Amino acid sequence: MFALKKIGIADTTFARADMGSYCEKTLFAEANATQREISIERYTVPGIKDLPVACKRLFNEGGCDIVIALGMVGAKPIDKQCGHEASLGMQAVQVLCGKHILEVFVHEDEGKGNDELLAKVMANRAKGHAQNALWLLFEPETMRKRAGTARRQGFADEAFFGLE
Amino acid sequence: MFALKKIGIADTTFARADMGSYCEKTLFAEANATQREISIERYTVPGIKDLPVACKRLFNEGGCDIVIALGMVGAKPIDKQCGHEASLGMQAVQVLCGKHILEVFVHEDEGKGNDELLAKVMANRAKGHAQNALWLLFEPETMRKRAGTARRQGFADEAFFGLE
Amino acid sequence: MFALKKIGIADTTFARADMGSYCEKTLFAEANATQREISIERYTVPGIKDLPVACKRLFNEGGCDIVIALGMVGAKPIDKQCGHEASLGMQAVQVLCGKHILEVFVHEDEGKGNDELLAKVMANRAKGHAQNALWLLFEPETMRKRAGTARRQGFADEAFFGLE
Amino acid sequence: MFALKKIGIADTTFARADMGSYCEKTLFAEANATQREISIERYTVPGIKDLPVACKRLFNEGGCDIVIALGMVGAKPIDKQCGHEASLGMQAVQVLCGKHILEVFVHEDEGKGNDELLAKVMANRAKGHAQNALWLLFEPETMRKRAGTARRQGFADEAFFGLE
Amino acid sequence: MFALKKIGIADTTFARADMGSYCEKTLFAEANATQREISIERYTVPGIKDLPVACKRLFNEGGCDIVIALGMVGAKPIDKQCGHEASLGMQAVQVLCGKHILEVFVHEDEGKGNDELLAKVMANRAKGHAQNALWLLFEPETMRKRAGTARRQGFADEAFFGLE
Repeated sequence: MFALKKIGIADTTFARADMGSYCEKTLFAEANATQREISIERYTVPGIKDLPVACKRLFNEGGCDIVIALGMVGAKPIDKQCGHEASLGMQAVQVLCGKHILEVFVHEDEGKGNDELLAKVMANRAKGHAQNALWLLFEPETMRKRAGTARRQGFADEAFFGLE
Repeated sequence: MFALKKIGIADTTFARADMGSYCEKTLFAEANATQREISIERYTVPGIKDLPVACKRLFNEGGCDIVIALGMVGAKPIDKQCGHEASLGMQAVQVLCGKHILEVFVHEDEGKGNDELLAKVMANRAKGHAQNALWLLFEPETMRKRAGTARRQGFADEAFFGLE
Repeated sequence: MFALKKIGIADTTFARADMGSYCEKTLFAEANATQREISIERYTVPGIKDLPVACKRLFNEGGCDIVIALGMVGAKPIDKQCGHEASLGMQAVQVLCGKHILEVFVHEDEGKGNDELLAKVMANRAKGHAQNALWLLFEPETMRKRAGTARRQGFADEAFFGLE
Repeated sequence: MFALKKIGIADTTFARADMGSYCEKTLFAEANATQREISIERYTVPGIKDLPVACKRLFNEGGCDIVIALGMVGAKPIDKQCGHEASLGMQAVQVLCGKHILEVFVHEDEGKGNDELLAKVMANRAKGHAQNALWLLFEPETMRKRAGTARRQGFADEAFFGLE
Repeated sequence: MFALKKIGIADTTFARADMGSYCEKTLFAEANATQREISIERYTVPGIKDLPVACKRLFNEGGCDIVIALGMVGAKPIDKQCGHEASLGMQAVQVLCGKHILEVFVHEDEGKGNDELLAKVMANRAKGHAQNALWLLFEPETMRKRAGTARRQGFADEAFFGLE
């Protein structure tokens, strides 16, 4: 009755929290609650610039239907440049493979020097996009209903405008 | 007598207005007024960086002839970087598929802190590019007549220079 | 005796002058004066980011041997970013198709707020690159003789250094 | 009993230290200590922008399973731009070949004008990523255990957050 | 006894010196001195953004084993952006063709307003990379010996660090 979907989780040894595990827990909990059948494959690499090819392999060799790529972008200019390069690499993989990579990047300076806040954003954003992955795979109509409603992952949603 | 054309609309849950619905209404109204036959497929994703692969799927799996990709780019530097990455991804999709993606991005700071203005730009730009999509599909000669005439979407047109 | 060459002209409704028509006139006048046989196909799109896929179609569906892509880049930072994205898209098309796209972009701020100067640069650059297109197609030896001689399009040529 | 893996080392004549040799020594020492069988192929190019195609050749012609690309990025803005372009080229190679390139770039200004420090970072980062290459090839489970534990190459590791 | 290698030289009419001819002279003189057999094909285009597709054609239609792409990057911000776009285009060509393009770009502001210095850098860098092209083609072992020895083209070499 349920179609099995395979979800890839790519993450790094560079990040300051194991975001992949938050992601994994939410995926299993939500899939269980909604009776969706999923399997998960994890792939850990050194840093964010190693993520795009890991995603490619999760699609081509791992047979994943979607990949969640988690990383922490450091606060130095060179870190931000690396984040940009990683994002472009992941655009290329998505375009070539025709499948979604949900990029879950947390910038170290989103924590504003407060480690507790940073840890919270990392956990929440990983969980938020785990939910998005399930909707994209199993409930596109839920995504459609949320179109243009100012949804955020990691911080609170914002205000949105009704139709004229 | 009329060739049926399929138009994809890709949009996000991040945007602060349902631009896709403005687009859809204009498409149906204009197509009806000019007796063009169209069908529309919508595809909603979390954020603008998820749009390029959605467009690719609308072309390859959805059989769309053109896609309108709508998104709101936030005001922070990282949002602008995401907009740039999304745009490059959509360039790649267009080049690979050989079909147009009309990118309808509104930058949150175009509203200059005035939410009413922002909402208006979002509605108007979506409508303006819906019209462009129809001209590209059905009336290339109308596009040709407007060449070099300083047309804008979302704000008023500008002044243009006649030929020497 | 003469090989017919097909030249594509891609332009926009955004530009503040019909640069494509300057280009077209120069192409026909010069081709006539040098007894070259050419045909021209025009393709008008909304803005510069729509040019790359138009060029791709002019090559693949239109059978063009070269394309001249004309556009005006606005003065705001976002306009400059769009110009950059369009240029990268056109690099991709050229690399994939193995044919030249002469990018004829005029930046609105090249006019320094003087509309007369801006209109002149737009006309002159379009004409200058129309000439370059013909040399690339029919007289590579003329290009070779001009190597390293500081040629400009739209403004006066600059000084160049002789060989040691 | 052991699968032979081939590791490519691409480096430059521009760099101010022979990082490739540090890399090579660590690879042989670690492979020996853990009884892994490896072979190494080196490929030296002028500068960092020549690395991407060298990596492509190490994969396609050299049959490498992974490549370590080592380079020093100069301190001038144009050097940083070259580093960015090289990184994007290496993203493209990885995505096309489906194999990892560990990018071991040291920025000259990481030395803060202190040549001794710079030399040390170059040596340590080369060694650190040689270890990562072996883990990626032979022990993905070791990478997995280190996920989200703030590992650094060239400088000390940072603090990381436990799971909630 | 000697393998004939074909070397492409791509250059521009925009540059303020005929760098291609310096390159050509060095190539013939060095090849002669070391008894290597080479042939050269030149291809002149308007500006640096036209170089990538010229290189592609030199590989695919011209059968070149390596290409040297020479250009002068102007001093204005838009010139630097063009240089960046050209470099990314040449990365794409190298990755697709699996052959080296030695990018010999001189930035006009490297002359610091001194035309004599600028002309000298242009001549020297062209000659330096002509030598690199021959080593890459015929003597990879010479490149290997020079790994990490801080070699520069156009200016003097820098200091390098010995192995620990």
